[in-house]
Amino acid sequence: MINGHGNNLQGIQHLLKADFSTNVFDNPQTDGLLDYLQTQMPTIRNYPDPECRILRKKLATTFHISPEQVLVTNGSTEAFYLLAHAFQQQCSAIRTPAFAEYEDACTLYQHQLVFVGDLNVLNSSTPADLVWIGNPNNPDGRYHNPQELIAFLEQNPQRLLVVDEAYIDLCEGAESVAPLVSQYPNLVVIKSFTKLFAIPGIRIGYLLAHPSIIQRLQACHMPWAVNALALKAGEYILDLPEKPSAALRQRLDESKRLQTELARIPGLRVSPSPTNYFLSELQQTTAAELKKQLLEKHGFLIRDASNFRGLGPGHFRIAAQNETINNEFIAALRASINVLQPCLSYPSL
Amino acid sequence: MINGHGNNLQGIQHLLKADFSTNVFDNPQTDGLLDYLQTQMPTIRNYPDPECRILRKKLATTFHISPEQVLVTNGSTEAFYLLAHAFQQQCSAIRTPAFAEYEDACTLYQHQLVFVGDLNVLNSSTPADLVWIGNPNNPDGRYHNPQELIAFLEQNPQRLLVVDEAYIDLCEGAESVAPLVSQYPNLVVIKSFTKLFAIPGIRIGYLLAHPSIIQRLQACHMPWAVNALALKAGEYILDLPEKPSAALRQRLDESKRLQTELARIPGLRVSPSPTNYFLSELQQTTAAELKKQLLEKHGFLIRDASNFRGLGPGHFRIAAQNETINNEFIAALRASINVLQPCLSYPSL
Repeated sequence: MINGHGNNLQGIQHLLKADFSTNVFDNPQTDGLLDYLQTQMPTIRNYPDPECRILRKKLATTFHISPEQVLVTNGSTEAFYLLAHAFQQQCSAIRTPAFAEYEDACTLYQHQLVFVGDLNVLNSSTPADLVWIGNPNNPDGRYHNPQELIAFLEQNPQRLLVVDEAYIDLCEGAESVAPLVSQYPNLVVIKSFTKLFAIPGIRIGYLLAHPSIIQRLQACHMPWAVNALALKAGEYILDLPEKPSAALRQRLDESKRLQTELARIPGLRVSPSPTNYFLSELQQTTAAELKKQLLEKHGFLIRDASNFRGLGPGHFRIAAQNETINNEFIAALRASINVLQPCLSYPSL
Repeated sequence: MINGHGNNLQGIQHLLKADFSTNVFDNPQTDGLLDYLQTQMPTIRNYPDPECRILRKKLATTFHISPEQVLVTNGSTEAFYLLAHAFQQQCSAIRTPAFAEYEDACTLYQHQLVFVGDLNVLNSSTPADLVWIGNPNNPDGRYHNPQELIAFLEQNPQRLLVVDEAYIDLCEGAESVAPLVSQYPNLVVIKSFTKLFAIPGIRIGYLLAHPSIIQRLQACHMPWAVNALALKAGEYILDLPEKPSAALRQRLDESKRLQTELARIPGLRVSPSPTNYFLSELQQTTAAELKKQLLEKHGFLIRDASNFRGLGPGHFRIAAQNETINNEFIAALRASINVLQPCLSYPSL
């Protein structure tokens, strides 16, 4: 795994006022889930069902597919590693910048790797048995609509398109291609319960694909990889009458406002994103310096994104918080940039 | 994974009066752990520490080794898969009968396999880079003392000895070789919090070895494989002033008594075991038939052990329960055997 990955807060917790570095949405409407899991604690007294039958059946119903098209995994991360394993030593094209685990998983299982900035540049001569894409993508929030993905699936029937939808519930107006796995045997969709429900500590994700792909992945899947409480969390979430939406709506509006405000700061370039997180780029200083300044002087943690393949030393990712904290962050960011690149705070003469 | 593995109770729960099939000890002295984990539920709001630093440090202190000699895993099962992966395509000797996951993990990572009934039969011409042994062993409870293992380590410096101590806390008078990993770079010890604390649903285990082996395994380890509550469970257990022992003492005495009682039943052969579980063999009927009879007529579940490599159709494994239930089980077993092999219930003329 690449360094500084995830919200690894050990050792800096005492400095922290707000964490803009993680794109997990701290949804206030999901406390019921934690209460429920407390009542389910005795389930850890038995082995979890290695086949995750109850949750697979619920997922199949949700997406109008069969349980044979569903694999439950230890977070969506395990889905990437299982895919890389089941297709070891094949060629993978990764749309970059990307979540580092696609590349790490492929490297571990000796894939030949190709990196592309756009799906359209893949032509018949590109060696790519698998094509990996985040939708919306992490770290830049870029979103492809189903029509674009369907066009790719139809033009590339010999390639497996791996669509990581871990963040799709946090993306404005986004539509999942999950139900399309019945129609396209070359489509794999990976999803997570983590992001909208803010439970990355419990490790629960899933993968939807053609039964033949699921079988191939199951052959690589060690038993009991998903713990008993994680299964209960997934079951609870799927049984909810509706997804928490008011808090999310508000957060996405805040993300847009924050993007607009930051774009006004001299020396900063913002990549527009339809999600709660987005990329920015510093023009005259590094993300590492800004991160240090913001944490030590103001207690705000950002994600230095310079270690994402294809990004530079000035790139950082932030996830919008609530209005009050965002306003404090904007002021802190202006002040920090003034310290780090003072010449940019005045119009050039 | 082999079929009928673990206590897979889905679908038969309504028939069940007592479960003799799992060798997880239902320790009544561990309820405090479940209460503690309820208070720790908010930890699932953040990613677990991918390096498991707090737990590794506590384990290092416990075994008088360094944190660089410790790897925390998603149950001990993940430790087997990581080892098989890190040493893929090498030769493994497995002491049989054995927990099926050693073989499954090695097969998945294309090991050449050798099966031996005894460590002593391995000589310099046996192709074995790794040697796997359960201590005490599952399913037969066989125990090797440290002197035997040390002799093997010293006579086979070129071979990695993998000692699975998942059940060692449940074995009378057993001594762990865990602290010896500092002395023998060819020793790997795998342990679990699951068995004595009866929490197989939470998935937490660990592996102790030379730092160079730990590094090799870490390179194969996907991030966040161990969930946040599992880490908390491990930390809690290591902080306990003493291990729960009175209940265990009683259970081991019950296991001995049950072994003696069963050995008296005509048509049954019992393999003596120093643990809470042991193997028995039916001489004139199959374990599958006995299992069906015991479950359907009496509500007792046993582990048909005929699918362990090296065992036959008559083998089954049981784990002793409390005195009352054991007595009911003995009566049920006598009755079932009378039905299945009536000729054996009377002395031959």
